[in-house]
Parts: sequence; structure tokens; C-alpha cells
Amino acid sequence: MNSPSPLRIGLAGLGTVGAGVVRLLDTNAALVARRAGRRIEVSAVSARDRARARGIDLGRFAWEDDATALAARDDVDCVVELVGGADGPALTLARATLAARKPFVTANKAMLAHHGLALAQAAEEAAVPLKFEAAVAGGIPVIKGIREGAAANELARVYGILNGTCNYILTRMEHERLGFAEVLADAQRLGFAEADPTFDIEGIDAAHKLAILASLSFGTRIDFAGVATQGIAAVTAGDIDHAATLGFRIRLVGSAAVDDGRLMQRVHPCLIPLGHPLAAVEGPLNAVVAEGNFVGRLFFQGRGAGEGPTASAVVADLIDIARGEAGPAFAMPVAALAAMAPADPGDSVERCYLRVTVQDRPGVLAELTAALRDAGVSIESLIQRGVGEDGGVFVAMVTHVAKGQAVAAALKAMAAGSSLTAAPVMMPIIER
Amino acid sequence: MNSPSPLRIGLAGLGTVGAGVVRLLDTNAALVARRAGRRIEVSAVSARDRARARGIDLGRFAWEDDATALAARDDVDCVVELVGGADGPALTLARATLAARKPFVTANKAMLAHHGLALAQAAEEAAVPLKFEAAVAGGIPVIKGIREGAAANELARVYGILNGTCNYILTRMEHERLGFAEVLADAQRLGFAEADPTFDIEGIDAAHKLAILASLSFGTRIDFAGVATQGIAAVTAGDIDHAATLGFRIRLVGSAAVDDGRLMQRVHPCLIPLGHPLAAVEGPLNAVVAEGNFVGRLFFQGRGAGEGPTASAVVADLIDIARGEAGPAFAMPVAALAAMAPADPGDSVERCYLRVTVQDRPGVLAELTAALRDAGVSIESLIQRGVGEDGGVFVAMVTHVAKGQAVAAALKAMAAGSSLTAAPVMMPIIER
Repeated sequence: MNSPSPLRIGLAGLGTVGAGVVRLLDTNAALVARRAGRRIEVSAVSARDRARARGIDLGRFAWEDDATALAARDDVDCVVELVGGADGPALTLARATLAARKPFVTANKAMLAHHGLALAQAAEEAAVPLKFEAAVAGGIPVIKGIREGAAANELARVYGILNGTCNYILTRMEHERLGFAEVLADAQRLGFAEADPTFDIEGIDAAHKLAILASLSFGTRIDFAGVATQGIAAVTAGDIDHAATLGFRIRLVGSAAVDDGRLMQRVHPCLIPLGHPLAAVEGPLNAVVAEGNFVGRLFFQGRGAGEGPTASAVVADLIDIARGEAGPAFAMPVAALAAMAPADPGDSVERCYLRVTVQDRPGVLAELTAALRDAGVSIESLIQRGVGEDGGVFVAMVTHVAKGQAVAAALKAMAAGSSLTAAPVMMPIIER
Repeated sequence: MNSPSPLRIGLAGLGTVGAGVVRLLDTNAALVARRAGRRIEVSAVSARDRARARGIDLGRFAWEDDATALAARDDVDCVVELVGGADGPALTLARATLAARKPFVTANKAMLAHHGLALAQAAEEAAVPLKFEAAVAGGIPVIKGIREGAAANELARVYGILNGTCNYILTRMEHERLGFAEVLADAQRLGFAEADPTFDIEGIDAAHKLAILASLSFGTRIDFAGVATQGIAAVTAGDIDHAATLGFRIRLVGSAAVDDGRLMQRVHPCLIPLGHPLAAVEGPLNAVVAEGNFVGRLFFQGRGAGEGPTASAVVADLIDIARGEAGPAFAMPVAALAAMAPADPGDSVERCYLRVTVQDRPGVLAELTAALRDAGVSIESLIQRGVGEDGGVFVAMVTHVAKGQAVAAALKAMAAGSSLTAAPVMMPIIER
């Protein structure tokens, strides 16, 4: 029996993840070949800096200064893009690869969030796979879990902890009772946060991933612009403390659902009750919950980033391609995806955590509670804590189930008064 | 454009799960067709009793008294077997379907544990898929998660809570401080345990599932006979109580690993430290942990049984088949699976929980501790509880890391003495 021909990879990007893919294909070569039915070999690579030390031998691979040239090479059957960036070289390479009718594998959530549908369309026209398991939740096979594992279900909701940097920061703030800025600085020092952490801490990275998950889960067109996004910079150690007193932990959660024909997509720090699986997700881990009408609640947890987990997801895609797996990138042809209007965040109906800091003078609590009453929001529990360093009083409340518009109106009325010493903070509560 | 022809199903078995598959294909018909690229329709069915009320309209399906006849029907492209039983009609149908070169989908872990390799071989020869997502952990896509999602990894270990009945019983014993027999009787009344619960509570059902998972995880031949199996009937409320005092919960865990070229497979009540994801798995849920050399620890949790979750897994397999997905049942051709000798359970090296009940007389504790010392097993913690109803004293110990043979020798020495009032109980500890 002739051994089947190998799947030959053109690899663009040799940062942590790119080097990880090379290391994985070296370390697990025999095992990958057994599972894929053929060998998977890198034949050509491209990166910005050829000389950089990466701990891998690049001499055995052909080199291209211009990543786009990988797509055209005769010794490349499939391109892996680990360059990053929504546009620029990554997008040029994606287009060139699909135009050359070769499979394309990427970990680039920003590019998919912005150009995923156009690329999926190009992949369909070329009849080649476009795969991106590594783009969401790192090593956790959640794209496959939703696209295939839960495929028989109408999903009511998909949500999860999609950014390991934010989860690392929030859980360290919780365990060590430290402030946001202090933990962020330490996370940067330890390599858990980027030098420019904007995409992570402002929730943009999680929003990219959520937009991809929502499309897969609900059969809708990717709508990154429709994700209402709020980061974690406003969360204080006091919030975490009071949430704990009330039986909750604070996590940055990306959440999507279809409600009344509209697509709700939101990235927000949320309160999660102890006992909910997401409340136990610690440090840089990621986790995703999908709720289906037959399967019930599925929960996936694992490492959301880093060399090994991301390389694991990239090579899982390559094994699928080597096995001949194909099918549309977003589970159905792009033409079949529904264009769904975004939901109005004000239409949400849920319990909320509200935190205000106010001046320490008589009647302030009456002002706050009157603002809530006038907006029709009732209070389930309230904690008032004495004067802090800034001379302010910290008031944390959990509302009964209320409409988003009503809560916003109450916060607006509070802010219009004279007693607040800082902008009020609202966090939704996720129920068990 | 012509719409593609539907995938026509012959469905054998119309119990809870079979009826669930019919209901799912009715309820989610349009969505399943969008994701599968074609409609999936039941054309013929077979069950023991045609007249039984199932809440579904069978009049639209052809009927076969003999399930085997489904395989030969011209209007059946694919057979789904939900009859159950390791041999008998299920096996006859599997063989007939594969001989007819049609895809075969089953939830039958007993049949796979005993005949999975022969069936996989027949499927390979016929070049048709043999799929069984529903056979392990119900609705959780763990077969897919390991076969495909974690495919790039050498797995060090796979383990999990694979039997919902046992987990339901153990967690109720824990929360309500009740005895095993009492909770079992109540579970039977409520439908969480079968009238004959032997397969569940003795660990056999979990062992079937573990043997399948181990083969997929390690690329080894299925070896059900090699699973060392112990059920939960010996676990007492006192064990659960003392484990909690020491920071553990008790769960029935199926665990498999490759150690020194040998395959360790074990189903055993285990102590799990609080903080380990398996410790939080409550009631009838199932969960699986897979540890890969690149991805690290993956954790999957969901409903392990019941109409909806099992139907979800069966139809996920059908969608894969409708999409043209194929590939070997156990991730690689049967000929490539390694025949690995079973590990000697005595070679395990781990901490253990030991519980003995002894007569209430001076010197008994010295006897017990001498037996451990003589076997070279040292004690990390010990709890002795006063005289119980039977006049015995309850002693619970956690050992330091020790070899299985040494622990067994100590238990043997204790049992040979005159002070034990019941057989000693050993449970391994799973580390965080």
C-alpha cells in the first residue's frame, strides 16, 4: 500500500503560537499522522524577522519574506495564518489562499469578526475549508462543539468567559483584594497582559470572539458592530467584595441570545452566583456555556490562550482538513445565514448589581432609593459601607428583575442629583 | 438549484431515546436541514411493541417487526440503533447495516465495549461511518471532543463522571446525609435509577464508556475486560462526611491512562478535592477531563442521559453523516490501534482514603497503624469517630502517596487481625 501524500503547510507568523505549531507537529508527528491518516508537514514559513531566536530549526523550511507568496507555492497545500490583525497582511494572505483554492486555517478573531463572512463566501466559491478553532477560547474545541457537537439543537443562549487576561485580573483582585490597576501592572510584568492591554481589558477581544460564536450558534450573519461592549476597568475591589457577600463572583462574560427575532450580543462584567459553573473558572482559563433545546446546558472549559493550547486547536483543524472534512465555515452557507437586527440593550429583563459612591450626608440613601422607585425598579438587597478614603460612601444594590431601560433611567436620575461622587456602575446578574 | 436528497433513517428502538430522536427531527427539522445541508427524515422504524403510546405519530413511517429488515430497505440510507444490549438484535442489526454498506449510528455502549473493534473493522471494509456520540456521556460531545477536538495531543489521562445514576445517588447522600440504600430506593421511584440498577451502581455502565474513551484517547484496542471496576454500594454516609471534613467529595470516576506501555483503566469511587472541576459536578450530570500534552486540561460537562441529550448526540452524528463526514470510528484504522497490556492496579502510586470499622477496645488503633507501618504506608491524616449503632468505631485515614500493592498488603494485614467489624474500604484520591 502506498502511503498517502502528506498535507503540506505554509505557515505565516512565527510568534509564540506559530512556533508552538512547529513544535507540536515535531513532538506529536507520529501520533498526528495516525489520527490524520497522513503526515502533516510544514514546507514553507514566513515571518517578520527571520533571525529571531525561537528555539526551533527553521533551516528545513522554505522561507518567504512576503507571507502572501505562501499561497502560490506548489509545495503548500494549506495555509496557516498566525500573523494577527483584522486587516493588512493577514487579510491579504487569506484572500490569496482562498483564491488559490487552498484550505485556510487561522487563529485571527479580529479578522474573522470583521471579514469572516466575506472569507467564508470566498471559501465556499473555492470549495475549500476555512477553519478557525483557535480563534475562540484557545485550546477548547468550542467551535467544533457548537458547529457539530450541538448541531441538532436550537440554541437559546451562548455565553462564556472568553478573555483570559480579564479573568486572570478579576480572580487575582478577588483572591488578593487588590485594585484593578495594581493587578494589571503585575499581569503585564508576568506576561498575562499585553504591554497595550486595550483590546483585552476593554472587552474588544471578547467581543470579536462572541460575534463569531453567535453566528455559529444562531445561524446569523456575523455582526461585530452589534456587540454592546464594556470592559473591566471600572470594577473595584469593593465591588468584588460586596458581590461575594451577596453570593456572587464577578467575571467578564460575553453573552449572545436571540430574543424576539433580534440578536442580543453583549460583553460585560457580570455577577455570577456561586454554584454556576462559570463562577468556578479561575485565572487565565476560558469557558463557554451553550444551552440547547434538546441537550440542555453544555459546559466547556480549558486554557484560552498560550502556545500549547492555541497550537492544539490549529493542528486539530489541520487534522480535520487532512481527513477530508469540509463543509461551510459557519455551519451553513453564507447565503443561508440570517441577517438579524441587533436587540436594544434596554429591552433586557434581568436582575442587576448597581454600585454608587455618594457623599456622606443625611438623605442620600433616600435620594437613591427614590430614583429607583420612580423608575419602577425595586431593590432585593442593599449594602452600605462607611466612609472610604475619598470621604465617600459606597452603596451596592441588587435589584429585582427589571427592564434595562428602567435601570438606565434610575441611574440617570441619580447622576443628575448632587450626591454622587463618581459615575454609577451597573453589572447584569447571570442566573443559575 | 435542485435541493439535495434527504438522508433517510431507519430507526430501531422506540423507547425514551428513540422517541426523542423522532421528536427532535420533528421539532428542529428546518434547523437540522440548514446545518446538515439536506433534510434528515425517518422513513422506517422498528420496536418491540407497535401499539405502545409514545406521544409520536408512527403512522407516517414504514414499520418492520424485525429490526434487521431496516438495513435492507431501499428507503433507508442510514440505520440508528437504540435497542440496547451488547449482543442479540442490536448486534445483528449493526452487522446487517454495515454489510449493506450503510452508515450506522448507535448509543449502545455495551455493544461497543464488547464488539466495537469488529464493528469498526466492518465499517472500514464497507467504507461507511460508524458513529456513537450518544454512547458516552449522553449529550456532551466528548467523543467528538477527543476524537477531533483534542486530536493533535498525546493524552496523558482521560477521566470523568460517566454514570449519572451513581452521581445522583452520591450527591443526594452528601446533601441529605442519607444512606446508600435509602437514596437508591428513592432514585428508583423518581426514575433516576433502573428497577435493576446493577449495571449502574456496580460501575459496569461506566466501565463500558471508559473502555470506549480509552481506545479513542490513546489509540489502543478496546479492552473492556481490562477495566478494574468497583461500584458505589460500599460508600457510606460516614465516608462522605469524613471526606468532606478532609476537603474532598466522593464521586464514581472512570479513569484511564497509559503508564509505562500499559493501559490503566479503572472505575472506582474516588475522593476529589474541592476546587477540582469534577467535585462540582452534581446530580445526574456527567463530565469528562482530558489532559493533553499541548492543550493541557480540557473539561466537558453536561447531561449524561435522558431523552433530549441522547437524541441531541444521535442527531449530531446524523448531521455529520449528512455532511459527508467520515473517517475511522476510533480515529484511526483498527489495524493501527495498539494492543496494550493492562496495567497492574497494584502499580498505582497515589494517595488513598482508607476506612475501617473496628471493635471499641484498647489497642485497636495501634493494630491498624502498625499494619500500615509494616507495609510502608504512612498516614497523612486520621479521623476516629466514637461508637456507632453497631457498637463499632469508625476510622477514616488519608495516606501519603503510596503504591497500590503496599496499601493492599496493609488492608490484608488489618483484615487478618481480629478487630475489624466489616471489610475495609479503599478509595483513591484524585489530585487537583
